[in-house]
Amino acid sequence: MKKVGVILAGCGNRDGAEIREAVFALLAIDKLEAEAIIMAPNINQHHVVSHFSGNELRETRNILEESARIARGNIQDIAKVRAETLDALIIPGGYGVAKNLCKFAFDGSKATVLPEVRALVTKIHELKKPIGAICIAPALMALLFGNEHLKVTIGNDKETAQEIEKTGAKHVNCDVDQICADQSAKIVTTPAYMYGDAKLHEIYSGIEKCVAQVLSWA
Amino acid sequence: MKKVGVILAGCGNRDGAEIREAVFALLAIDKLEAEAIIMAPNINQHHVVSHFSGNELRETRNILEESARIARGNIQDIAKVRAETLDALIIPGGYGVAKNLCKFAFDGSKATVLPEVRALVTKIHELKKPIGAICIAPALMALLFGNEHLKVTIGNDKETAQEIEKTGAKHVNCDVDQICADQSAKIVTTPAYMYGDAKLHEIYSGIEKCVAQVLSWA
Repeated sequence: MKKVGVILAGCGNRDGAEIREAVFALLAIDKLEAEAIIMAPNINQHHVVSHFSGNELRETRNILEESARIARGNIQDIAKVRAETLDALIIPGGYGVAKNLCKFAFDGSKATVLPEVRALVTKIHELKKPIGAICIAPALMALLFGNEHLKVTIGNDKETAQEIEKTGAKHVNCDVDQICADQSAKIVTTPAYMYGDAKLHEIYSGIEKCVAQVLSWA
Repeated sequence: MKKVGVILAGCGNRDGAEIREAVFALLAIDKLEAEAIIMAPNINQHHVVSHFSGNELRETRNILEESARIARGNIQDIAKVRAETLDALIIPGGYGVAKNLCKFAFDGSKATVLPEVRALVTKIHELKKPIGAICIAPALMALLFGNEHLKVTIGNDKETAQEIEKTGAKHVNCDVDQICADQSAKIVTTPAYMYGDAKLHEIYSGIEKCVAQVLSWA
């Protein structure tokens, strides 16, 4: 059974991992007969946002602790995961990717990437293992591999696409239920909730295609 | 388009709604061309549990605020939802159902039900609209309607089934990808994560069957 690392960035689209995208990735991995190895950084979130009011809260939450809610406790500190033990990686979206795993939400194409995330993801890529990146996670791919003229999609949002292209990556418009597959980089991307009003079954369809393409290269 | 109320009990299987069951219910509702109206009680959770360590934390979280993470902010206070505006109800599981929506986790068949939950659910039932209850949520159905000799399933856990039967309800063993449908009560139940080691695609299959049966009676 192929082992697919799933990197979570918290629990909630405004300050963590997009919950539905994360669950859909897990469902697709299970349906396609692979095993999910869930992981997250063991540091505090950039901030905590009320998903009811939209306001920032005076609270501190740990990314690994909150991601464990989606993982039902079956989760590892990403700093302790070795790339050699995985066959592939999937990174669901949510603002947590752009606020916690890297700082794309604040610094765009100049953003830094969390060292433990950079270490695992670049190692997986060096080992020529495939990566699937959902929603805004393709921006993280561009930060790390844009200089390889990587081809990615975040849907059709012009401003985000332009920022991504400053890394050297090429952005391709893509419908919510489709994927962008860069065969030479073995990186697959799908827009998901970058289309905020998309239907859930369309988002699932894009994510299942993304996971299937990744597994076919694993 | 039929409107299906979805009652959430927080965000995380140990102290709130079971996230995967909640997302699967939303996916099935969307796939079957109905609209989800997500709601939760606007009160504090019974407690907050670390999903990483399993320890209880010295923290306070509001059920509506946390449920809003699954709902992406599109959520209502259950006390303000009128049964007349809905065609059906779905209640995903998780310990939050048995700790927050009612006290089944502590008091078994003698447990109280949160007044605003009791009010909406009993009104839906009086109006002869269907209800789907997932995982441990059938225990809530038994607390409210056990005296009608309701037929439900929570899988095959003997102790929980015996406690449920003390309410007058009848428990039926059921596989994870199947449903128990009580046609006269219009109440449908499916075990989901009552089987802790079940495969995600089997859980989804049971939940989709549950939602489909509910919608066929709506």
